[in-house]
Amino acid sequence: MANRKKIKFGALIHGVGGNISAWRHPEIPADASVNLEFYKKQAQTAEAGLFDLLFIADGLYITEKSIPHFLNRFEPVTILSALAAVTRRIGLVGTLSTSYSEPFTVARQFGSLDHISGGRAGWNVVTSPLEGSARNYSKTDHPTHDERYQIAEEYLEVTRGLWDSWEDDAFVRDKEAGVFFEPSKMHRLNHKGRYFSVEGPLNIARSKQGHPVIFQAGSSESGKNLAAKSADAVFTGHESIEEAKAFYRDVKGRAAAYGRSPDEIAILPGIGPIIGRTEEEAERKYEELANLVSIDKALDYLGRFFEHHDFSQYPLDEPFPELGDLGSNSFRSGTDKIKRTAKEQGLTLRQVALRSATPRGEFVGTPEKIADLLQRWHEEEAADGFIVHSAFPSGLTDFVELVVPILQERGLYRTEYESDTLRGNLGLPIPENRYTAANRKVTS
Amino acid sequence: MANRKKIKFGALIHGVGGNISAWRHPEIPADASVNLEFYKKQAQTAEAGLFDLLFIADGLYITEKSIPHFLNRFEPVTILSALAAVTRRIGLVGTLSTSYSEPFTVARQFGSLDHISGGRAGWNVVTSPLEGSARNYSKTDHPTHDERYQIAEEYLEVTRGLWDSWEDDAFVRDKEAGVFFEPSKMHRLNHKGRYFSVEGPLNIARSKQGHPVIFQAGSSESGKNLAAKSADAVFTGHESIEEAKAFYRDVKGRAAAYGRSPDEIAILPGIGPIIGRTEEEAERKYEELANLVSIDKALDYLGRFFEHHDFSQYPLDEPFPELGDLGSNSFRSGTDKIKRTAKEQGLTLRQVALRSATPRGEFVGTPEKIADLLQRWHEEEAADGFIVHSAFPSGLTDFVELVVPILQERGLYRTEYESDTLRGNLGLPIPENRYTAANRKVTS
Repeated sequence: MANRKKIKFGALIHGVGGNISAWRHPEIPADASVNLEFYKKQAQTAEAGLFDLLFIADGLYITEKSIPHFLNRFEPVTILSALAAVTRRIGLVGTLSTSYSEPFTVARQFGSLDHISGGRAGWNVVTSPLEGSARNYSKTDHPTHDERYQIAEEYLEVTRGLWDSWEDDAFVRDKEAGVFFEPSKMHRLNHKGRYFSVEGPLNIARSKQGHPVIFQAGSSESGKNLAAKSADAVFTGHESIEEAKAFYRDVKGRAAAYGRSPDEIAILPGIGPIIGRTEEEAERKYEELANLVSIDKALDYLGRFFEHHDFSQYPLDEPFPELGDLGSNSFRSGTDKIKRTAKEQGLTLRQVALRSATPRGEFVGTPEKIADLLQRWHEEEAADGFIVHSAFPSGLTDFVELVVPILQERGLYRTEYESDTLRGNLGLPIPENRYTAANRKVTS
Repeated sequence: MANRKKIKFGALIHGVGGNISAWRHPEIPADASVNLEFYKKQAQTAEAGLFDLLFIADGLYITEKSIPHFLNRFEPVTILSALAAVTRRIGLVGTLSTSYSEPFTVARQFGSLDHISGGRAGWNVVTSPLEGSARNYSKTDHPTHDERYQIAEEYLEVTRGLWDSWEDDAFVRDKEAGVFFEPSKMHRLNHKGRYFSVEGPLNIARSKQGHPVIFQAGSSESGKNLAAKSADAVFTGHESIEEAKAFYRDVKGRAAAYGRSPDEIAILPGIGPIIGRTEEEAERKYEELANLVSIDKALDYLGRFFEHHDFSQYPLDEPFPELGDLGSNSFRSGTDKIKRTAKEQGLTLRQVALRSATPRGEFVGTPEKIADLLQRWHEEEAADGFIVHSAFPSGLTDFVELVVPILQERGLYRTEYESDTLRGNLGLPIPENRYTAANRKVTS
């Protein structure tokens, strides 16, 4: 374990909450999802806690049954760019879908964010689980799960190629001689693939971290393969350390099979810690949160994972209904898990709905208990770090003020930023420019 | 003239310069186009001068002959979002093409910028003049000039519809009652048109200015019609006050024909002022700038307007060559004007190239002379205001420190911001939500 990297932390910032009724919590401004001051304060708290990154999730389709945060929220690229101007070291990671965008634009926007932030950008590559997204983008059909991942793979190749359009020493900028750039260091991609044809070059240079950090968040087979082949980091979710360890071994093994070092990919499960000075105080905080949800809202929320299925048609206190294939073309890994867990543990619809609405996890307790758990997950290779999502703002402050110092004392967490780039802090390599690399190989 | 609005100002910020060789100017950081501090300083200078807005231009295709600023620059949505976090009152306007983007994404990004900035966003709707753009966006053909404008018109309808997805009082946010929003105030667009099918609703509310301000910058017939029908402001360019007056009358007249008040559309010609304490100092500054350009670079630059035509094949000191239709499917209004002026004034290729590379205009001189010209253009209805583009940074500072106070003394320019939104400062109406309006009509 001597060479093991220290624990990494990200903060998921999500306005009025990933929790269906968290917006009712007294601490949360009811307009938090479109409130710059709220995002700024969360970002600055996470940066004071030396977090590696902020994470902004996203979605492209809503209905009146969507959770409050999804109805009216900042778009990731814009809010991250704003936060870049008011933070100095923390990484800025946002979700953007490869199914409903163009690689030239996305390469530019993340490239631009990477320059604005001085090398702190990250892109969470998703394929859009929701069928309805197609109807917001002039498409007749949402591509199947498999095809979405094929598109994503080619998309990512194109984007990486565009980011390498300019070698790092291309911009000479010699005012005296009148030479702005060296033409031989500018490269056209000329990609012609199954889904995309992109000539290039991109009209922005690489930043000092080379490429924005690539995140992947799907846990299906296709998701894990894409992550193992192409991602720098994985945002995942697990209900137990055993499940997390299995996932960790699985993805690191797949990465090795693609010829990568396991060190080149960081596995970061999401956790929703609830911290109290005593166990009782922590439990009370969880109860306070869970009690904000009504059963009707919980059923709606559950329906979202199953293509907005109407669960109010079933009896609440009988076993979770048989749904067949429903949900398998959207959030496949999530819906499979819900069905499996309900069956294995013999849960009723009411129980499944309430657990989905306010996931509890095991990270509820005193700062010492949470630090112990984080240490165990890290030491037993269930995680390289964690994406912390607090249901209410004081959760993040408590984490930074109470949990972080314990981990620092134990030598498990940084006491200052190691780098001013996101790759530097995550301990990830800077990808060499493909043309510089090719030329180096030819001449050596 | 009693009711005439005061003069409006925008600042075009363009890193190493709209001028082909301005990057060589001693005042300009050679990396200015990707330098956040440079943009921030320009923005804050313009805000100190009570400017209405910043303007960020854009393009989607480069070659090794593109001007330095185009090769490696910030993408508009990202840099404007960053500047939103470090400015308070100035408007934030950026170019984005309707030919190579999706209305759902663009409505969201400008909607989000509008919330981040507290109602200061503006979108300059362009159709992408450069043929090569298609090859960066997996398209076999660049749409014709006319089709691009048809697409733009439908695109704008969709975007405006999406911005109205939520009525202004839709988000109730009653924590006690558990009511986040009023479902009857959420609206699906269900647009099905020739080019786009978009269901909605958009996942962001309107900001306090209703919709981002719509800019239009084309001067072709289609451009003027789109502006007159749908734009809040027009960024144009003229070589003389006569030309500007004709354009002003033309567009305001077309707006009236569409049933709009001439007051609802602001005409803002671009000017490149060069200010000296004496006429001689101003002339010296222009010469210093013009002398940074070599004839080879000037020919390359000219070629850019004509689909990257190679002008080095013609003799330099003979009449400007006959080009037929070349250039008419890209920057049509610009290329027509170049051809016409060359013919009328009997210019050689060398003269045309150097004038294109460092346009001089008439705004060169002392602060008083420039203030007089601005007053004349404003009083004679050649302009409602101006987009100021300074070839070097002290040009903007001089404008703010030397020209602005003269206009203020004459009562022609604000002494403090009237509003905290861009619409408020430009004196433009807030568009009423279409559903609220329809409902008001039904019930009244």
